[in-house]
Amino acid sequence: MSQAVSSPLYAAIDLGSNSFHMLIVRHIEGSVQTMAKIKRKVRLAAGLDEHNALSQEAMQRGWDCLSLFAERLQDIPDENIRIVGTATLRTATNVDAFLARANTILGHPIEVISGEEEAATIYKGVAHTSGGMGRRLVVDIGGASTELIIGEGFEAKALTSLKMGCVTWLERHFKDRQLNSTNFNNAIHAAKQMLEPILEQYTALGWDVCVGASGTVQALQEIMLAQGMDEVITLAKLKRLQKQAMLSDHLEELEIEGLTLERALVFPSGLSILIAVFESLNIEAMTLAGGALREGLVYEMVAGLRQDDIRARTITSVQSRYQLDETYADQVATLASKLLAQCGGDEWVGEPQAEMLLRSVAQLHEIGLSIDFKKGGEHSAYLLQHLDLPGFTRAQKHYLGELARRYREQLTSLPEQHALSSSSSKRVLRLFRLAVILSHRRNPALEPEFALSAEGDKLTLSISNAWLQANPLTYAELELEANRQTDIGWPLTLLAS
Amino acid sequence: MSQAVSSPLYAAIDLGSNSFHMLIVRHIEGSVQTMAKIKRKVRLAAGLDEHNALSQEAMQRGWDCLSLFAERLQDIPDENIRIVGTATLRTATNVDAFLARANTILGHPIEVISGEEEAATIYKGVAHTSGGMGRRLVVDIGGASTELIIGEGFEAKALTSLKMGCVTWLERHFKDRQLNSTNFNNAIHAAKQMLEPILEQYTALGWDVCVGASGTVQALQEIMLAQGMDEVITLAKLKRLQKQAMLSDHLEELEIEGLTLERALVFPSGLSILIAVFESLNIEAMTLAGGALREGLVYEMVAGLRQDDIRARTITSVQSRYQLDETYADQVATLASKLLAQCGGDEWVGEPQAEMLLRSVAQLHEIGLSIDFKKGGEHSAYLLQHLDLPGFTRAQKHYLGELARRYREQLTSLPEQHALSSSSSKRVLRLFRLAVILSHRRNPALEPEFALSAEGDKLTLSISNAWLQANPLTYAELELEANRQTDIGWPLTLLAS
Repeated sequence: MSQAVSSPLYAAIDLGSNSFHMLIVRHIEGSVQTMAKIKRKVRLAAGLDEHNALSQEAMQRGWDCLSLFAERLQDIPDENIRIVGTATLRTATNVDAFLARANTILGHPIEVISGEEEAATIYKGVAHTSGGMGRRLVVDIGGASTELIIGEGFEAKALTSLKMGCVTWLERHFKDRQLNSTNFNNAIHAAKQMLEPILEQYTALGWDVCVGASGTVQALQEIMLAQGMDEVITLAKLKRLQKQAMLSDHLEELEIEGLTLERALVFPSGLSILIAVFESLNIEAMTLAGGALREGLVYEMVAGLRQDDIRARTITSVQSRYQLDETYADQVATLASKLLAQCGGDEWVGEPQAEMLLRSVAQLHEIGLSIDFKKGGEHSAYLLQHLDLPGFTRAQKHYLGELARRYREQLTSLPEQHALSSSSSKRVLRLFRLAVILSHRRNPALEPEFALSAEGDKLTLSISNAWLQANPLTYAELELEANRQTDIGWPLTLLAS
Repeated sequence: MSQAVSSPLYAAIDLGSNSFHMLIVRHIEGSVQTMAKIKRKVRLAAGLDEHNALSQEAMQRGWDCLSLFAERLQDIPDENIRIVGTATLRTATNVDAFLARANTILGHPIEVISGEEEAATIYKGVAHTSGGMGRRLVVDIGGASTELIIGEGFEAKALTSLKMGCVTWLERHFKDRQLNSTNFNNAIHAAKQMLEPILEQYTALGWDVCVGASGTVQALQEIMLAQGMDEVITLAKLKRLQKQAMLSDHLEELEIEGLTLERALVFPSGLSILIAVFESLNIEAMTLAGGALREGLVYEMVAGLRQDDIRARTITSVQSRYQLDETYADQVATLASKLLAQCGGDEWVGEPQAEMLLRSVAQLHEIGLSIDFKKGGEHSAYLLQHLDLPGFTRAQKHYLGELARRYREQLTSLPEQHALSSSSSKRVLRLFRLAVILSHRRNPALEPEFALSAEGDKLTLSISNAWLQANPLTYAELELEANRQTDIGWPLTLLAS
C-alpha cells in the first residue's frame, strides 16, 4: 500500500560566469521535484584579466563555493551528478589550475562544455519543461555568453553560442554606470553585430514560438507581473522598460517596480542584448521558459521523462501523484470536448488554446479533494496555481486554478487573467461546469444524451425528460446551474425534451 | 509507475431525526477521502404525532430525499453501502410503511439500528478519527437521542442511548420559543433526570479525555472560533454562551457571533443538554470528535484501517500519499527526540504533547515540496492546516502548519496558537529547526556528534570542530541559525569543541 519512498537524489551544478548554482532534485512518478537550490554569486567573469587569466582571488571565491557544494554532493550517487563549466571557464587561459583543485574539492569531475553543447543542453531543458507544438526559438542570455537555438520537440536544428552576456556587456558598455541613451545604443548596436552572422540561417529556419531563459528574462517577468502586465514579452514592453531605466542617471540608483536589487546591476546590459535579439530576429512575442541549462542536465539524467507531449506527461504525473481518479478525469474531459464541439468548437470559443485548457482542468479539477472535501475548489485552485506544471505557462496555471476554484457550487465571474480572452475564458468555464454536472455519476454509460446549442453567449441544453426524471439529483443541479449562469449574465436554458 | 486509480466508492447514509445525510468516500492509501456529501433537512421527528405515528407529509419528505440519494447510490457496489435509521425510525409506530417504499426507492435495505448499536457505531467513528491514548467518554447529541459511550482504543466499555435530543428538547422545553431562564432551567433539569440512571456506572468507569460529536458540538466550535476562544469546551464557556443566548428574548431573534442560521433553531436545546451532561458527569473539558456515526459506518466497511495509534496511521498515510521520503522523516524525528532528551525532555518543554508534535512535524515538514520548492514552507503550512488529519485536533493542525512554515530560512516568532503553551511551542520550534539543519545530509551516519544543553531558554550546542570544518555548508547554516534564534530573543550559542 505504501508509496512513500526514499528515492535517489540527482544534482546538477553549473559554474556560471556570474554565479555558481547547485540544483538537487528527486524523481517522483514522472515529475522532477526540487529538493534544494543553492546559489552563490562568485563573479568568476569579473576575475578575468586583460589576458583572460583568472585572478587568484576569483579562483579562491570559486573554490570556497565548491567546498560548500561538496558537502552535499557526497551523499548523491556519482552517476546522478553532472557538473558543468561555461563561458568564463571556456575562456580562462589558466582553467587547468582552477579545475585541478576544483575537482579535488568536489570529488567529481567538472566538464567544461563547449558553447554548442551548452546550447544543446539549454534546449533540452526548455523542451522538457515547455508545452506546445511547432518550432521554437530559444534565447538564453547568460553572464558571458548568449545561446540561441531553434528546435522542434526534443530535436535542435540550429545551435549558437555567442560571446556576449549581461556581465560582459555591463563591463563593456556600461562601465561608467551611466544609464543614458549613448550607452544603451552602443550596447544594442554591439549585440546586433554579434547576431549578424546567424540572422540568415535563423530567419530561413523560422519558428512558431519563442521562449527566453535565464535571469534577464525572469527579471522581466517579475517586473511585468509587479506592474500588472500580462506575461508576454514584446519589443514595445522592452522599450518601455528601457525608458523607465533611463529615468535614473546611474546604475546604482536604478529603481524599477518589481526589479530586485540582486538583479539590478546586470539588468540594463541584459535588456540591451534582448532588445537587439528582438530587433534583429523580428521577434513578436516571447514567454519565459520553464527551465534551461540545469533542468537540461537533470531531466536528461532521469530516465523515462522524454515524452513528446509535455503537458500530457505533466497531467499524468499530477494525476498519479495526487491519486486522482483517471477514468473519471477522462470522462469529464471527453464530455467537455463533446459540449464544445456541439457549440461550434474553436470557432465558438475563439481561441485554439481554449480546448486544451478546458480538457486540462477537466482532468485535474478534483485535485483539491486530496486535501479536503470542504473547500475542495479552493484547494484545487491553490494546488494548480502553485504546482510546478511543466508545459503550462504561469498565466495558464493561474487560469486553470480559477476554473477549478469554480468547479462546483457558487458561480462567480472570473478575475482578470491572461491565458484567454475574456469572452473565451468565460465560455470555457461554462462548459467545464456543465461537464462536471453531467458526469456526476462517474460512469460514461450513465451520462444522458444531450444537445447543447449556442447562439453567441446564449446556451440551450436539451436532455430527454425521461432521463431527467430518472436522475432527480442531476436534474436539480442542472436547473440550479441554469439559474446560476443566467443570473450572472450568461443565459443558459435547460430543455426537458 | 502510475499510482492513479479509479478506486471503488463507499457510501454511508444516515436517516436522522432532523436531517438525512449521505457521505460518499473512497479509500486512498490508508486514508478515507470524502468525494461527496449531501444533506437534506427532512425534519422527520417533527412529523411524529402524539401516538408516535409519522405523518404522510413527513414520510413523503423522506422519500423525496431518498430519491435524490438513490441516483448516486446506483453506481456504488452493494457491499460498499450502509444505510441506517436512528431514533425517530426506532420510535415511529408506522415505520414499516415508511421502510417498504424507502427500500424500493433506494434499491438497498435500510437498517433501523438500536440505540446501543448507534452508540457503538458512533464510538467506532470517534476511535477511527481521534488521537491520544487512554479512556475516552464520547457524547453525541442527535435530534431525538443522545449517545454516551466510554471506551478505550476500539473497545467500548459502556454504551448508552437516551431518548432526548436537540429536536425533542426544543419541542418539549422551548415550545414557546422564549429564551428565558425558566425554559433553560427546565431543559437542563429534564436532561439531568435522563442522565441520572447512568451516572454511577459512568463515574465508576471514569475517563481520561472527553470528546463530543454532532451538530451541537460542532456549532459550539464554530462559535468559539469566531469569538477567538481556543477549541476546548468547558462548562464556563457553555454558561457564557447560555447568557449570550438569553440576551435575545425569542429563538427567532437569536444572534450569536459564529452561529449559522441553519443551526440556530436547535442550538439552545442542544446547549441545555450539553450543560446537563457537563454538570452531571463533572466534565472538565471536551473537544470535538473528528467523526461519529457516518464515519463509523464507512471506516468499518473499508478494510485495514483499524490501527491502535490513529496518529501514526495518519502520518504513514500522508507520507505515502505525498511521496515523502520516509527514511529522512524518521531521521529528523529521531534527531529531534534526541535534542529534546538532551535538554531535559518533557520537563524542559513543559508539556507531554510537545514531543508528539515535535516528532509529527519532523515527519511531515517536507510535504510542501510536493507542490514546489519555492515557498516550500508556505505550502507545507497550507497542506498541514487544511488536510483532514485524523488524530490531530484543529489547534494541533494549525500549530503543525506554523512550525512547518518555519522549517527553513527566516525565523519569525509564532502566531497565537492553542496547541501548546507559548513557552513550550517556542521550544519545540527551536529544536525542530536544529533537527532539520543537523540532518541536511539526509543520512544518519553523516550526522555530527552533538551535545545540546539548556538553561531555561538559553541553549548551547556543541559540535566537534573537525566535523564543522568538514561540513562547511552545515557549519554556515548553524552559525546563521544561532544568530537568528538569538536575534529573535531565544539565545543559542554554537560551540566548536
